[in-house]
Amino acid sequence: MQIEHILPSDIEKRSFEIIRKELSESGVSIPEDIEQTVVRVIHTTADFEYTRTLMFSENVIEKARKAIREGACIVTDTNMALSGINKKSLAKFGGEVFCFMADEEVARQAKERQVTRAYVSMEKAAGLGKKLIFAIGNAPTALIKLRELMDEGYRPELIIGVPVGFVNVVEAKELIIDSDVPYIVNRGRKGGSNVAAAIVNSILYSIDSTRGM
Amino acid sequence: MQIEHILPSDIEKRSFEIIRKELSESGVSIPEDIEQTVVRVIHTTADFEYTRTLMFSENVIEKARKAIREGACIVTDTNMALSGINKKSLAKFGGEVFCFMADEEVARQAKERQVTRAYVSMEKAAGLGKKLIFAIGNAPTALIKLRELMDEGYRPELIIGVPVGFVNVVEAKELIIDSDVPYIVNRGRKGGSNVAAAIVNSILYSIDSTRGM
Repeated sequence: MQIEHILPSDIEKRSFEIIRKELSESGVSIPEDIEQTVVRVIHTTADFEYTRTLMFSENVIEKARKAIREGACIVTDTNMALSGINKKSLAKFGGEVFCFMADEEVARQAKERQVTRAYVSMEKAAGLGKKLIFAIGNAPTALIKLRELMDEGYRPELIIGVPVGFVNVVEAKELIIDSDVPYIVNRGRKGGSNVAAAIVNSILYSIDSTRGM
Repeated sequence: MQIEHILPSDIEKRSFEIIRKELSESGVSIPEDIEQTVVRVIHTTADFEYTRTLMFSENVIEKARKAIREGACIVTDTNMALSGINKKSLAKFGGEVFCFMADEEVARQAKERQVTRAYVSMEKAAGLGKKLIFAIGNAPTALIKLRELMDEGYRPELIIGVPVGFVNVVEAKELIIDSDVPYIVNRGRKGGSNVAAAIVNSILYSIDSTRGM
């Protein structure tokens, strides 16, 4: 095996070419509006299964771009996703990223009520009175709480629902798909904080070609 | 579909039970010393393919535990992995986690030499004169540089080589498997910062049952 000599600045471009070539060779064609998001998730995971499991509500990319341009903030359920989202790029449109998982009051309430910190974090986020996009890469309980809040009238701009795991993950994702919120959800068990960050960044990069540099 | 009612503190335990049950049902048996690591990676990814692709050098878990107990530090190539590693748990043994990807001098040198920041980061880490474990979840160039440094006589305690991607990723991992360093490598394209953090945490939790709480 041979190491390919390539400039650092060309690695991502070359990766995307390889992914698109392999998708085309296996006869997969992806609608134009969601193509960048699907390809970036494959780039992050090296897992082509996402072409079959990523679900997008109607015109969701257009709606997501509009929300970001209008200064929407992003709420995540892990510090890893917070770390992976391009905050400089988001800041250009006035948005910022919040993660309340390490918040002491959230931890105290979660313990007292015997619910997850993710569950309490969603209540806290919904109470901010901001235009919000949720990027959930870990906790199905965050999606369960968001669905409860929506059933009570709360309306997020977008839910990116890609928790990974084995307990209530499949079911929680279906609660979002069955709602009337704009969503990007990965059906099944797979997902993760890295996938959540990749989806957010794919949307940011589609409206900010300088990538926050 | 029905949401299962479960206490937050029981979710991880229940997930591990499901994974072990499914592994057993599909006739997969994993050697005892590496079992916790493999199961935690599946827990993080929901991807059972890792049972076939994760490669462990001889007695690597024992060697990793020894290094951590002796105060080894961890160097990663992404802030996401840094964020995911249980730093409280590591600190109990005297270690800390470093990531030099946002270091200004590293960025300057990388630009000047037309190499990746990960490549320069490895030089910087090797120059610290510390006992080090490398946890590489993103950049194959980090593994390529580590192999070069080892060929010149440098000796890390352990290399966790799980970059994900399409350009030089497969090849760079083989460079580590072909060396004489203790390693945990995921053969092929898959991996990621989340996988790197899960592997580190699986080793930490096997020697710190309180998990840094």
